[in-house]
Amino acid sequence: MDLVTLDDIRAAAERITSGVVRTPLLPCPWADSGRPLWLKPETLQPIGAFKIRGAVNAIARLDDDARRRGVVAYSSGNHAQAVAYAAAQEGIAAHIVMPRSTPQIKIDNTRSYGAEVVLCGDGQRERVAYEIVAERGAVLVPPFDHPDIIAGQGTIGLEIAEDLPDVDVVLVPVSGGGLASGIASAVTALRPDAKVIGVEPELAADTRESLRSGSLVDWSIEARNRTIADGLRSQPSELTFAHLSAHLHDLVTVTEDEIRSAMAVLARKGRLVAEPSGAVALAAFLYHAGELPEGRTVVVVSGGNVDPVLLSDVLSRSLDEE
Amino acid sequence: MDLVTLDDIRAAAERITSGVVRTPLLPCPWADSGRPLWLKPETLQPIGAFKIRGAVNAIARLDDDARRRGVVAYSSGNHAQAVAYAAAQEGIAAHIVMPRSTPQIKIDNTRSYGAEVVLCGDGQRERVAYEIVAERGAVLVPPFDHPDIIAGQGTIGLEIAEDLPDVDVVLVPVSGGGLASGIASAVTALRPDAKVIGVEPELAADTRESLRSGSLVDWSIEARNRTIADGLRSQPSELTFAHLSAHLHDLVTVTEDEIRSAMAVLARKGRLVAEPSGAVALAAFLYHAGELPEGRTVVVVSGGNVDPVLLSDVLSRSLDEE
Repeated sequence: MDLVTLDDIRAAAERITSGVVRTPLLPCPWADSGRPLWLKPETLQPIGAFKIRGAVNAIARLDDDARRRGVVAYSSGNHAQAVAYAAAQEGIAAHIVMPRSTPQIKIDNTRSYGAEVVLCGDGQRERVAYEIVAERGAVLVPPFDHPDIIAGQGTIGLEIAEDLPDVDVVLVPVSGGGLASGIASAVTALRPDAKVIGVEPELAADTRESLRSGSLVDWSIEARNRTIADGLRSQPSELTFAHLSAHLHDLVTVTEDEIRSAMAVLARKGRLVAEPSGAVALAAFLYHAGELPEGRTVVVVSGGNVDPVLLSDVLSRSLDEE
Repeated sequence: MDLVTLDDIRAAAERITSGVVRTPLLPCPWADSGRPLWLKPETLQPIGAFKIRGAVNAIARLDDDARRRGVVAYSSGNHAQAVAYAAAQEGIAAHIVMPRSTPQIKIDNTRSYGAEVVLCGDGQRERVAYEIVAERGAVLVPPFDHPDIIAGQGTIGLEIAEDLPDVDVVLVPVSGGGLASGIASAVTALRPDAKVIGVEPELAADTRESLRSGSLVDWSIEARNRTIADGLRSQPSELTFAHLSAHLHDLVTVTEDEIRSAMAVLARKGRLVAEPSGAVALAAFLYHAGELPEGRTVVVVSGGNVDPVLLSDVLSRSLDEE
């Protein structure tokens, strides 16, 4: 299987300069001085999550004919908003297939970018999306299982290596694996001594099991749905698993309480609003130091689209604990 | 009176590259499309506020002799942490004079950067600081009343003009006026057609009154202390007032409710944790459109050091209102 290369990621970086925010690395003087920490805040992207990078890269690669036919995506999460936003930037029609059970706010956000939202029954998303592909000749933009998506997310790794050339450790959330595949490909190519480590919720730790067994292991969606980290309930594809197997140094898991606590730390000390999925890498840094290599560490804060009720709750609870 | 020049600000920008985060401009697709909006998130600085820029610039200008004697600052707010952090970065001793009534968390934060905190009675800060200056020959780093501080804060304006060359409007909080003086000096020098507009709480609107009357008007500290925006309770000096008179296009005031509401919008839509003072410029954008020029607008989010109880409260209230 052909893996995404550093050149692919560099080409993606040139394509995404206009639609994507070049996020800074944020030094954290509040972290343990023996393990200097920087945050990579993808929460600052226009749609609040890293997904914009892959979507903009994939859409930038479409030819004129494909642009006329438009794009399709199926997602109830950040990928929906990313494709809607990226298509609108390019003046391309977008159909986004979402389950009827999707929270209204996410449907409204997706529509606000000008996308046509197609509602469907639970478990029907993929079928409905492919119907639109067949009817209109529209191009499907998958959430992670495509080299253009992996290369787009990999631009985060390029930026980390550029801004912190002597980085030792990068902690990245893992779900479908597009983000971790891209970042690990870029960082290990540029800084062979650096270690990229995936982070999963204990309750959705299928990728750790897959990496240990050497082939993809299937966890039921019911099992994966237990975690509060709603952005980390997917599983790698053969393509992303090949990248993770080749480039990830290790994979660490975190508990639900650790995720909530890391959200509070991000708000209070990092002044960042993170969704649960966006807080898992910091949770690993804070509560699993013994499982991690030492050195200059970057934590990827992947997204910030959180229910304000949950954020408010997490903030008030973290005070009770002091 | 000599005003800070564009060259002063450019020189400051070269001095502060290592200790200060080059913050991005964040596009806001959720804003009114007729008035495109970008946020300048100074909340992302290592100490959570823009104050680090002036402090790093002032300390970088000290000669070896002054460095050996160390620096002094008096502040119960973000300036204390800025001077402590900037001095530590340079290996310089720092004494920070704080009232005994300062919340313990701010005292602890300031100490955590290695500064020596000198506690004193309320209203004694300035006297105690000058005693340390006299005893040790230490250099006082003032919070706003100095060209080096104004030039440091002005680097924000350089970055805005560089990242958004066709900016039309910049909204900036005003307290002692160092931030607004610096930004207005830079932006109006580089983009003469752009309008820099100050924002104050209605309850601490001394600067608006001063600008209208043409000379500094004094509001009692009791009056200014009424606002929730604890970072905006100072008044301009003759030096900052001269800059504001020369370069500010206008000054708009916002209510306490508008400040709270803007904090919630920053958290929910901008994924940024802002303190009340950091939210006033967005409050003006959101709730005082009729008083503002149209066009491409930058809102400066000046700081994010907020009591988590207040943030949690603001988030839960904003939901009740929907």
